Amino acid sequence: MILLDGKKVSNDIKNEITLEVEKMKERGEKVPHLAAVIVGNDGASLTYVASKVKACERVGFDSTLIRMSNTTSEIELLDKIEELNNNPEIDGFIIQLPLPKQIDTQKVLMAVDPNKDVDGFHPMNFGKMALDMSTFIPATPFGILELLERYGVETNGKHTVVIGRSHIVGRPMSILMGRKGFPGNSTVTLTHSHTKNINQITTQADIIISALGVPDFLKAEMVKDDVVVIDVGISRVPDETSPRGYVLKGDVDFENVSKKASYITPVPGGVGPMTIAMLLKNTLLARERRQ
Amino acid sequence: MILLDGKKVSNDIKNEITLEVEKMKERGEKVPHLAAVIVGNDGASLTYVASKVKACERVGFDSTLIRMSNTTSEIELLDKIEELNNNPEIDGFIIQLPLPKQIDTQKVLMAVDPNKDVDGFHPMNFGKMALDMSTFIPATPFGILELLERYGVETNGKHTVVIGRSHIVGRPMSILMGRKGFPGNSTVTLTHSHTKNINQITTQADIIISALGVPDFLKAEMVKDDVVVIDVGISRVPDETSPRGYVLKGDVDFENVSKKASYITPVPGGVGPMTIAMLLKNTLLARERRQ
Repeated sequence: MILLDGKKVSNDIKNEITLEVEKMKERGEKVPHLAAVIVGNDGASLTYVASKVKACERVGFDSTLIRMSNTTSEIELLDKIEELNNNPEIDGFIIQLPLPKQIDTQKVLMAVDPNKDVDGFHPMNFGKMALDMSTFIPATPFGILELLERYGVETNGKHTVVIGRSHIVGRPMSILMGRKGFPGNSTVTLTHSHTKNINQITTQADIIISALGVPDFLKAEMVKDDVVVIDVGISRVPDETSPRGYVLKGDVDFENVSKKASYITPVPGGVGPMTIAMLLKNTLLARERRQ
Repeated sequence: MILLDGKKVSNDIKNEITLEVEKMKERGEKVPHLAAVIVGNDGASLTYVASKVKACERVGFDSTLIRMSNTTSEIELLDKIEELNNNPEIDGFIIQLPLPKQIDTQKVLMAVDPNKDVDGFHPMNFGKMALDMSTFIPATPFGILELLERYGVETNGKHTVVIGRSHIVGRPMSILMGRKGFPGNSTVTLTHSHTKNINQITTQADIIISALGVPDFLKAEMVKDDVVVIDVGISRVPDETSPRGYVLKGDVDFENVSKKASYITPVPGGVGPMTIAMLLKNTLLARERRQ
């Protein structure tokens, strides 16, 4: 069994980006600049945005954090987006989700200039992805592709089963794994809450990508020998023995599934760290495409 | 076995649209107006475009056929598209494919105003479809959904296997069948040229949608009892006994597969006639959305 070490790979990627940024500076070019907008005071969102800003500093990007109050109106947020769309200093920006209830998330995501949409959530970018055109691939799916590529995991002709059909992970992942090229060319099955006999399907899979959010959902008896397992789920499970009062758990019963797997991502330290690295990568791409 | 009669259903849809158009006229409204652009002299394309124009007449739409020579430059075609985008008389328009070699098809399709893109080929519309937003669904997939809906074929929790990953049929179909709602909520497997053990996959399918273009590809031993079969393939097979010197064949060995199927589309007379009906439906939607 080989561990797909997202912590290590994401560090490698950050180092590569740092080198790119240094070259940009040497050539006298403006470095990439990412802006992040956060509305409200949700603790997890604040922590997550802070780690994105910190990652920018780490690789030498400029970054701007824009905090807006919990009572921000939709119009105020749309005005801010318009400002960022038109600001030539900003190469890419993200709107941290979830947004407060008075704001229509879809309307907001549609307002972002697709050329600055480094989250890849705009329908224009999603459509380009589905039609095999150059675009911004959403960070988590992009990170999974990168892990598979760097570890040389064979995907061609393999049967990939994706669990969960979210717009952020499951659906894009199901499209990407079936595209031409590498990673890709898989036969892909997309499963979800309406799927019957999920065990029958997962036991046929060469590659399983689980983005369900149910701790320990995937058990050893649900997979075949030498399966490749990508665990995107991340849940807080109460645990009195932990100083924080909880532990982070993936969708996969790691202890037992890892005994049968050829490759597997740990939680934490697998897909999670890849997501921020790929956001940086998309910001670098946005900078390069604007030149 | 119940025949999914696309000829009959497409006629029903055309009748429904005719009634809508009559109501529009009674209200003194402008009727929907579809334009079709054809570049070059390809016989099959000319026939196909002619049948689209004829269908417009049948339901009371205005239509405009724009013929451009085989030596048309990309710029000339893009200028024509710009003109159609800006022409308030035109509700929707299509660029008949394939285009001559000197023209970049992707560039052309990207130039069409998404609000007039009744073929649903623009990445903006494709992305909206994949993200469950209101859009124009490409005519052939839209026609298949309509057939399943009108015959009340259960798709919820069923295992749908799509054969072929084209941008026009296979890929959108795989997305649509896995979306929430009806028709949808299927567990979907997308297969293609790199798929191994295709028989093993098709024999598990409750619903098979084949868009491969290989005559008689799907044999009786590849399907289980009571399977639902949608045959999108259409190939010309030489046949001396036919006055035209060929017969039209689908991907499905109809004679034998139909004995096991619960529902099946014939070729011709199945999916084919639905495509033009749904193009009309999209044009009607384009008209309504502009009001």
